[in-house]
Amino acid sequence: MGSLDKNDVRIFSGQSHPVLAAGIASHLNLPLDPTFFNRFSNDNLYVQLGASVRERKVYIVQSLIPPVSDNLMELMMMLDIARSAGASQIHAIIPFFSYARSDKKDAPRISITSRLVADLLVTAGMTHCMTMTLHSPQVHGFFSVPTDPLTARHLFIRYVQDRKYKPDETVIVSPDIGRAKPAGRFAFQLGFSLAAAQKERISDNEVVIGETLERQVSGFRRAVIYDDEIVTGTTVLELCKMLVYLGIEEILVICTHGLFAGSSLENLCRVPQITKIITTNTVPIPEARRDPKLEILSVAPIFAEAIWRNATRQSIGGLFTFHEESEENVLEQK
Amino acid sequence: MGSLDKNDVRIFSGQSHPVLAAGIASHLNLPLDPTFFNRFSNDNLYVQLGASVRERKVYIVQSLIPPVSDNLMELMMMLDIARSAGASQIHAIIPFFSYARSDKKDAPRISITSRLVADLLVTAGMTHCMTMTLHSPQVHGFFSVPTDPLTARHLFIRYVQDRKYKPDETVIVSPDIGRAKPAGRFAFQLGFSLAAAQKERISDNEVVIGETLERQVSGFRRAVIYDDEIVTGTTVLELCKMLVYLGIEEILVICTHGLFAGSSLENLCRVPQITKIITTNTVPIPEARRDPKLEILSVAPIFAEAIWRNATRQSIGGLFTFHEESEENVLEQK
Amino acid sequence: MGSLDKNDVRIFSGQSHPVLAAGIASHLNLPLDPTFFNRFSNDNLYVQLGASVRERKVYIVQSLIPPVSDNLMELMMMLDIARSAGASQIHAIIPFFSYARSDKKDAPRISITSRLVADLLVTAGMTHCMTMTLHSPQVHGFFSVPTDPLTARHLFIRYVQDRKYKPDETVIVSPDIGRAKPAGRFAFQLGFSLAAAQKERISDNEVVIGETLERQVSGFRRAVIYDDEIVTGTTVLELCKMLVYLGIEEILVICTHGLFAGSSLENLCRVPQITKIITTNTVPIPEARRDPKLEILSVAPIFAEAIWRNATRQSIGGLFTFHEESEENVLEQK
Amino acid sequence: MGSLDKNDVRIFSGQSHPVLAAGIASHLNLPLDPTFFNRFSNDNLYVQLGASVRERKVYIVQSLIPPVSDNLMELMMMLDIARSAGASQIHAIIPFFSYARSDKKDAPRISITSRLVADLLVTAGMTHCMTMTLHSPQVHGFFSVPTDPLTARHLFIRYVQDRKYKPDETVIVSPDIGRAKPAGRFAFQLGFSLAAAQKERISDNEVVIGETLERQVSGFRRAVIYDDEIVTGTTVLELCKMLVYLGIEEILVICTHGLFAGSSLENLCRVPQITKIITTNTVPIPEARRDPKLEILSVAPIFAEAIWRNATRQSIGGLFTFHEESEENVLEQK
Amino acid sequence: MGSLDKNDVRIFSGQSHPVLAAGIASHLNLPLDPTFFNRFSNDNLYVQLGASVRERKVYIVQSLIPPVSDNLMELMMMLDIARSAGASQIHAIIPFFSYARSDKKDAPRISITSRLVADLLVTAGMTHCMTMTLHSPQVHGFFSVPTDPLTARHLFIRYVQDRKYKPDETVIVSPDIGRAKPAGRFAFQLGFSLAAAQKERISDNEVVIGETLERQVSGFRRAVIYDDEIVTGTTVLELCKMLVYLGIEEILVICTHGLFAGSSLENLCRVPQITKIITTNTVPIPEARRDPKLEILSVAPIFAEAIWRNATRQSIGGLFTFHEESEENVLEQK
Amino acid sequence: MGSLDKNDVRIFSGQSHPVLAAGIASHLNLPLDPTFFNRFSNDNLYVQLGASVRERKVYIVQSLIPPVSDNLMELMMMLDIARSAGASQIHAIIPFFSYARSDKKDAPRISITSRLVADLLVTAGMTHCMTMTLHSPQVHGFFSVPTDPLTARHLFIRYVQDRKYKPDETVIVSPDIGRAKPAGRFAFQLGFSLAAAQKERISDNEVVIGETLERQVSGFRRAVIYDDEIVTGTTVLELCKMLVYLGIEEILVICTHGLFAGSSLENLCRVPQITKIITTNTVPIPEARRDPKLEILSVAPIFAEAIWRNATRQSIGGLFTFHEESEENVLEQK
Repeated sequence: MGSLDKNDVRIFSGQSHPVLAAGIASHLNLPLDPTFFNRFSNDNLYVQLGASVRERKVYIVQSLIPPVSDNLMELMMMLDIARSAGASQIHAIIPFFSYARSDKKDAPRISITSRLVADLLVTAGMTHCMTMTLHSPQVHGFFSVPTDPLTARHLFIRYVQDRKYKPDETVIVSPDIGRAKPAGRFAFQLGFSLAAAQKERISDNEVVIGETLERQVSGFRRAVIYDDEIVTGTTVLELCKMLVYLGIEEILVICTHGLFAGSSLENLCRVPQITKIITTNTVPIPEARRDPKLEILSVAPIFAEAIWRNATRQSIGGLFTFHEESEENVLEQK
Repeated sequence: MGSLDKNDVRIFSGQSHPVLAAGIASHLNLPLDPTFFNRFSNDNLYVQLGASVRERKVYIVQSLIPPVSDNLMELMMMLDIARSAGASQIHAIIPFFSYARSDKKDAPRISITSRLVADLLVTAGMTHCMTMTLHSPQVHGFFSVPTDPLTARHLFIRYVQDRKYKPDETVIVSPDIGRAKPAGRFAFQLGFSLAAAQKERISDNEVVIGETLERQVSGFRRAVIYDDEIVTGTTVLELCKMLVYLGIEEILVICTHGLFAGSSLENLCRVPQITKIITTNTVPIPEARRDPKLEILSVAPIFAEAIWRNATRQSIGGLFTFHEESEENVLEQK
Repeated sequence: MGSLDKNDVRIFSGQSHPVLAAGIASHLNLPLDPTFFNRFSNDNLYVQLGASVRERKVYIVQSLIPPVSDNLMELMMMLDIARSAGASQIHAIIPFFSYARSDKKDAPRISITSRLVADLLVTAGMTHCMTMTLHSPQVHGFFSVPTDPLTARHLFIRYVQDRKYKPDETVIVSPDIGRAKPAGRFAFQLGFSLAAAQKERISDNEVVIGETLERQVSGFRRAVIYDDEIVTGTTVLELCKMLVYLGIEEILVICTHGLFAGSSLENLCRVPQITKIITTNTVPIPEARRDPKLEILSVAPIFAEAIWRNATRQSIGGLFTFHEESEENVLEQK
Repeated sequence: MGSLDKNDVRIFSGQSHPVLAAGIASHLNLPLDPTFFNRFSNDNLYVQLGASVRERKVYIVQSLIPPVSDNLMELMMMLDIARSAGASQIHAIIPFFSYARSDKKDAPRISITSRLVADLLVTAGMTHCMTMTLHSPQVHGFFSVPTDPLTARHLFIRYVQDRKYKPDETVIVSPDIGRAKPAGRFAFQLGFSLAAAQKERISDNEVVIGETLERQVSGFRRAVIYDDEIVTGTTVLELCKMLVYLGIEEILVICTHGLFAGSSLENLCRVPQITKIITTNTVPIPEARRDPKLEILSVAPIFAEAIWRNATRQSIGGLFTFHEESEENVLEQK
Repeated sequence: MGSLDKNDVRIFSGQSHPVLAAGIASHLNLPLDPTFFNRFSNDNLYVQLGASVRERKVYIVQSLIPPVSDNLMELMMMLDIARSAGASQIHAIIPFFSYARSDKKDAPRISITSRLVADLLVTAGMTHCMTMTLHSPQVHGFFSVPTDPLTARHLFIRYVQDRKYKPDETVIVSPDIGRAKPAGRFAFQLGFSLAAAQKERISDNEVVIGETLERQVSGFRRAVIYDDEIVTGTTVLELCKMLVYLGIEEILVICTHGLFAGSSLENLCRVPQITKIITTNTVPIPEARRDPKLEILSVAPIFAEAIWRNATRQSIGGLFTFHEESEENVLEQK
Repeated sequence: MGSLDKNDVRIFSGQSHPVLAAGIASHLNLPLDPTFFNRFSNDNLYVQLGASVRERKVYIVQSLIPPVSDNLMELMMMLDIARSAGASQIHAIIPFFSYARSDKKDAPRISITSRLVADLLVTAGMTHCMTMTLHSPQVHGFFSVPTDPLTARHLFIRYVQDRKYKPDETVIVSPDIGRAKPAGRFAFQLGFSLAAAQKERISDNEVVIGETLERQVSGFRRAVIYDDEIVTGTTVLELCKMLVYLGIEEILVICTHGLFAGSSLENLCRVPQITKIITTNTVPIPEARRDPKLEILSVAPIFAEAIWRNATRQSIGGLFTFHEESEENVLEQK
């Protein structure tokens, strides 16, 4: 990876995750450009970008973690500043895109908020978006500007492959049948079997669930739970209970976005059968909460590579979510 | 259902499915307004709406069935006419929304065509859309105008309930784990078990598939395959083979959109274990192809009711895909 | 004020100021329509409007008070819901419009955030805005949809007139020469003199300030400080000190938007010469903070009247900020 | 014509006219970039561009010939792909722009479809358009993006000049008085007389027509019919009959766009007095239909030159329809 | 024609042609709503609409006559006011739409100004346009909002029919072959012959022109020159000279828009063979210039009828330019 | 200041102020690119840009001086031409932005015309704006494209500093308390006192005014009146009368935009106490009106520098209105 023209590119970080932003910049051998933040007594945010953006490619790194509304507002103000100061390209780098779960109307008079957020970002000035592992791949279509949905799956694959687990011992488990596809893909690439819990029934009728899951995991001794994000961990905890009941002896938990609200991370770590919780740094986790069971893989090189390829007009395909899925999808509709 | 003000509402039909359009109009006690179609020798379409639309609510019925491009172009011209002739509301009634499967980027440099089509329809003049059972619920979010995704699920539930099948004999089968959620919902409302085939593996490694499915369907004697649309029927045929091999004795096939390309319908009817193929009339099926095994349920009353509620400002919630799904979805993110 | 058609109008309140919203609805003899709010563990907001809005006039009341970002996001989601559920008119009633001070670029690479917020609200679905006493009247021009800037000035005028102060004893004081125009208008309508502090110099060189102000207030014994909003109260406190030093014996403080951050309200109440602090309820003030010196005038009747006139297509001119200013402004450019 | 930077420019061809696209690319010394096309069983099109377009100038060649709707849809998908994959410029090269005749409302409630198509192309992502000889020059104004209407007139002028016809023997004939201007321009540049048939009357009252035309063509022995496009050829055939009746002994037929629906080309070739039919390759004509009387002039060099000038920021004026018309048009309005 | 709801409709007039606006209002039995105009010393215009427009249908009458820029600016300000004051419909009634001749690019780097003006009017707030006899029918397609191009042709037809001229004595003459179609339509409806001058050649080579025209008008003794607008009258004067030379003894001049710049009207009146100049009042002509030869037909009833039909949702087809042209145009492309 | 690439940049001038445009171009060592202007007899403007703009940075200089509507229309046509001819950047350089005073609604149903003009310019094609000293800084926020509000204040500061006036003799006077902020800034930078007349009261109650002003100016012998623009000069004349009455012996009048309508300039020059009227050349003043008291400072170097920095992607901050105002404004909201 060669170096970019320092005069042509600007990288700014919002306040949500400066460590990741610095990591991305560092991989690009570029400094983070300075930004001045303030919050007035009337709770109005104030942002000033600290370097001229005129006719330059501007990359703004902001993860939409809690406090989500503040971080979103801050990002929109930074986009607005870049636009009104004459930037030629305005790239929003959003390692964790919040509201991605609000992607459909499953009740009357609610908001498909991820579409709304995508539109707001464009109104604010975004001309291109880079993000990672959206809750559903269709959210990509909510953006009216070019968008690159990157993936960390290869990091997880490498991690599991290094463990040299045997296929007849290990089963990949999706906590929700409605999101089983990515887990299936993950299982396929590793050569493992797949099981999918029918989450809805967990809350309604535990016996039926158990029965279905039992059919799928019986005979295995190790489960790798694979999900996009963990917030409260309730689903995963219940799933672990069931897996243990069904004879699973060791559990690995993998998720791209480790939000770990409340004491969810601690609760998971307390489950004896869980030996590892593997996540990425799209969401910052304070030093104090880092249990020895927790493994954090850095996505900074992935975003750095994507930015570099973008700025040098190279193909980004290899970094995309869809990378290995192309052929068969074409076949699917035939 | 009271009657609408004939002077306030116009219903036009494109050439794709005039029988369904007439059925909808008939349920509303309204005439279909006349439309004149022509195709010039240079293959340019010509459409003329045959009744004044000035400051009126215009409903244009067009199913995006083959020839899809022509039917889409015709619909866009009708929308454009309504707009430029001063209609106050322009509702596109699209019983089958094509391209809904092109809802994500699973390969580089392809088109999320359903988003594109949604945008084109808005450019052409559509101010509101009514459609039925989109391939994925997120496609709803591709529309920048109010959109009502209706469902025919209650028709299928009533149909199966009337059969009084026993829960220990019958399993609902989703042909693809990636779309298992609607089948799970269907199973739940009927009180049946759910099985989901892992379609990707079918084409790659038949044995593994069998194994997974086997765990889920063993013990049942009747399978109800539940899907949104059937085109070539290849997946369903392969699934049936597997189900029979796994001991299933009777199969019902249910799909909202029966496109039945080529001789797919005939092939399915030839499977002895398939006793019924239940679909709707969102896609027209010629008289000649209607096998005794084929059961076509009419969606005309559903669309008519939705139009009537829309025109009289009543809630449409009960007709929506999400109807019974609301509470638990709220819980899901907690 | 006659009553509105309950079936034609919907009034919803965000979570920022339900008491004011209820007051407005009550003045209209309408119920507040129910809304369901939730906040997921991932800090994502969830809103569901509890009454059908299809083809109806929807009024959404939300004051952009702290937490500003959350309240803004909540408002945008409510607008988005109304739009995608087919409301015919979507009115944002914003008693306090935050970010109005970010109305110009007084430093490079900052955001004219009030223009940004106006654009975001339109993107979210707002078709009309009602607000009160914007920090500068030009902010009106940031909105690309019809906007009604209401005023509470007549409430303050009536309040002061009731006191029957003498013109040779009382001077109206603007805390900032840059915003002296509204205070001048206020003084003119009451028949009082006007003084304007040169705030910039306060922080740089107190003596010069005093000198300028001294020329204006000497001879008066009562000052009425008139401003649009008070946040920290620092400026007003410093101004009071100066006024007392210059011989003023009694001070009234008037502001439309009483944000009173921190202990600002308490600090002001502790100034012996301040006998009254008059504000409105555009910003809620908890019962516990209500000092006897504090007088809160309700703007609910003003917003109710404006909504009623809007819904019945009557002129709103009399409620506007500009009401009595029209003739002379026309003259101004001659 | 120097060569373009291969890394900066991409040329893709739709399926309508790959031979012309290859010809254009060949004149530019560039390869056609690969594109993968498919049509699913549900009649949905699938397109994948085979080379990275990120921040590049993309030229997409597609002639809107039959099947027009499919070719238009394919073009829009290609534009959409280029946009969402981050192309910096997206040029639609449309040698034959269909629907150009639908350029006005000559009946109530019809579509000005060429405006609609122009808007759809922009929605799909087009940032610039190059096309040739629009049916009326005003169609240019339907495009909201920069558009270059090229011309092949100089090819025809050179062709006729080479024949060295005498002005007192030869008359240029426009088949329709409503489109006589381009024929008049053509006649003027060649130094010949002009005649214009009054087509409307042909269908209503043949005698009147003959009379008018007779006045204009009597005395000449050779007619050169000049039109923008020929579809069914009915008009031209009737015109030829009339011309022969009026004493014309030899006829040349010139048209830019030779659509030649049905057996129109064959019918024309069978007219003994027609000695040559000269057209261009904006519309492909299969080898089998190429009568010896048919002369096809290639527009590939024109489009190649325009692309080259565009990519190198040179003036394209000389290639435009309006080239020689500028001065006098300025005078026209005086 | 019944009367409109005075509370639902507002009619305002700009300063260009208040007499016509009053005439239109009078035919509708409505008062013109008051408007206050001013021009500041800095040449900035000031407009205030004098009646509430909130949620009402607003019709603004303004003819784009000289001073064109001022009248256009004034119209845009009136549209802007109506929009920002909450009008539900904003109709621009533009009896004479200026810049319609700037409808194509006949030179490099010029503006298709009529498209620009159409876009500016929409930006300013226009939601619907009514105008009369555009210079070319394609200009209709420049408008992105519904537009009704009305015609005064039936007034002229009635006028000529009343004269009971004989078809073998009278020929309709179009001054420019490029605009011969409307004249042809006019001739057809009257049952007369058509002749078309080839204007371009007039300025280049007078003899050729004469020859062509001679073929068409020889034998007739009366010519009716039919055009859309007359500005300087130079073309018509030259044409008259030629017609007289060719034996024409009496000439009628008809034009919809009589701009008559300079002394053009006087010059025409001085031609002895011209017995009548018939125009409409889309452009005001001062009393002092009204020669006995001048006949002004009022279009007020046409616009009034169109507004009335628009406001009462009736078909406007019969008033349109295209009225009698529909069938054959459909045939044209076959 | 290095030189710009002549092939990359185009500078055109409208007809409003070619001398200033030439001055700007001259400072950039660039020629003004030729433009052809015409006005047809129907009062339609005609503009042709005389150099290819394809993919180039285009700067169009036009001051919106009287005749304002014509100059605005001309500018919009030039922008439209640049856009439709494929310019990559279209910069409107507007030394005097008219209508900036119409920046708020101070009466019902009037237009915030400066917002309208900003939107019209964007519709016409402007992608960036440079202007000078807007009447209120908020007007900046009316522009939806990047805008640089330049200032000439440093020219005036240098001019006054060169005079070496003493602070105890000289007071800066703002003619209107509503615009006292810039005068305060000016006074602060010079180290002088500030006085602000309360203009509204001038017209209503002269005594009160005098009293207020008296308090501020008593003791000084020299007044420097500082305003943004002078049109009729009435306010300044009345102010001078008052100042003289209050003991001022010498008056300097400074304004950025010297419109000087009618005989206003002459009237000012006739006031004996006025020794200098200092303005800039944003508005052209004919040679004949240049009184010896008149001092015109050129802004050509400022615009040239801004263009040069823009084209070379350097920071423009130092030239902005806000330059020295940044820190304290940040403090203001605290």
